[in-house]
Amino acid sequence: MTYCVGLKMDRGLVFMSDTRTNAGLDNISTFSKMHTWSKTGDRVIVLLSAGNLATTQGVVSLIEERAKAPDERQPSVFATPSMFQTAKLIGDTVKEVIREAAPTGQNADSFAASFILGGQIKGGEPRLFYIYPEGNFIECSADTPFFQIGEHKYGKPILVRAYDPAMTFEDAVKLLYVSFDSTLKSNLSVGMPLDLQLYEADSLKLGTHKRVERTDPYYSTISDGWSEALKRAFQSLPAFEA
Amino acid sequence: MTYCVGLKMDRGLVFMSDTRTNAGLDNISTFSKMHTWSKTGDRVIVLLSAGNLATTQGVVSLIEERAKAPDERQPSVFATPSMFQTAKLIGDTVKEVIREAAPTGQNADSFAASFILGGQIKGGEPRLFYIYPEGNFIECSADTPFFQIGEHKYGKPILVRAYDPAMTFEDAVKLLYVSFDSTLKSNLSVGMPLDLQLYEADSLKLGTHKRVERTDPYYSTISDGWSEALKRAFQSLPAFEA
Repeated sequence: MTYCVGLKMDRGLVFMSDTRTNAGLDNISTFSKMHTWSKTGDRVIVLLSAGNLATTQGVVSLIEERAKAPDERQPSVFATPSMFQTAKLIGDTVKEVIREAAPTGQNADSFAASFILGGQIKGGEPRLFYIYPEGNFIECSADTPFFQIGEHKYGKPILVRAYDPAMTFEDAVKLLYVSFDSTLKSNLSVGMPLDLQLYEADSLKLGTHKRVERTDPYYSTISDGWSEALKRAFQSLPAFEA
Repeated sequence: MTYCVGLKMDRGLVFMSDTRTNAGLDNISTFSKMHTWSKTGDRVIVLLSAGNLATTQGVVSLIEERAKAPDERQPSVFATPSMFQTAKLIGDTVKEVIREAAPTGQNADSFAASFILGGQIKGGEPRLFYIYPEGNFIECSADTPFFQIGEHKYGKPILVRAYDPAMTFEDAVKLLYVSFDSTLKSNLSVGMPLDLQLYEADSLKLGTHKRVERTDPYYSTISDGWSEALKRAFQSLPAFEA
């Protein structure tokens, strides 16, 4: 599995992904699930992926290849006029890869992959999309201002309770650390290191990127501190009277 | 789905289950998933069930029927010499029900059900078991002192972090309320009311039972209080420095 989150904040976009891939518990590897394309002053595009690794790599490779030859008639992520068109381009690439992977009526479910796409293109707002394995997609809204893909259940309760679009980036990153830590503590298929990417609204350039290693001191602070803080929070509630 | 938890504490056993069953989102009902058999001074047996409702009801009905006619040659939960033998009896009943439900090679997966069994029989210790859909079972240990069945992911992080076998019952119930509230907030297939059952070690009689309704004031206190306490806990951690 995988765990990736994209948050839409008033201040911009925040992305985090793990790096573990597995074909069975005894066959695990590290692959980044975060890909970015940017041209300062024009656009920033961030793509997080979950699901079949051959599919997600196929999609990213095709996008990479076509981005490098924008003069050819291929669609390029550097040429799309809006984030909506970018989401469509990626959705179409997903369909193309799946079509090629399962031409003889194989069960396409095993090739499934889903994506979180976020970014901003000059003239538009920062936007965040969820792209389904079928290649169609939805956009986040004020009611659902974040997307998770992969092993999302363990880390959801804290997002639901503590997320606030007015948060600072510093608090948003803290929130993601807590959400990832809850997931890492419960599910072996999600693993360190983590990738973090910030995007400041209207900056049209990539913000801070960080690879969070197992030895990251801030991660340890949050992981240990959260255990203690949760225990204190728990103790602060009144006990049941039997 | 379903959410049920059995905790083994130094002081005894604590059980909680939801009551929602569903065959599709538009077809939900309320059924208790907690069943108890007790004979004061001799034994207390608590069974929580998740999975196919026909299977779980079949298992419980067979156990009920056989318990009421202990003189017949049927195995009865009032006659087993130990909790281990009780787990075996229930596992065998599960196998029997599945065998009858899928005699013609139908896919038995759709009939699957799992169970948490806890209790104490005179002369033995309080014990807690997890019975698999195949009818075999495991017992909890000091390393894994609780079992969850059904929709377990949302409510697991708080159990992992705050559970302590030395807790009082009052704190254990508070812990379960928090774990259930996290699950109820995230998954529609788990629903109120909840059933709570306490068992005090070596008492050999059923302890407090409570049906927790949507209007339960302590539940509201915990649900609202936990949101606030989590926010405070979150704020107490140092922010990320970008």
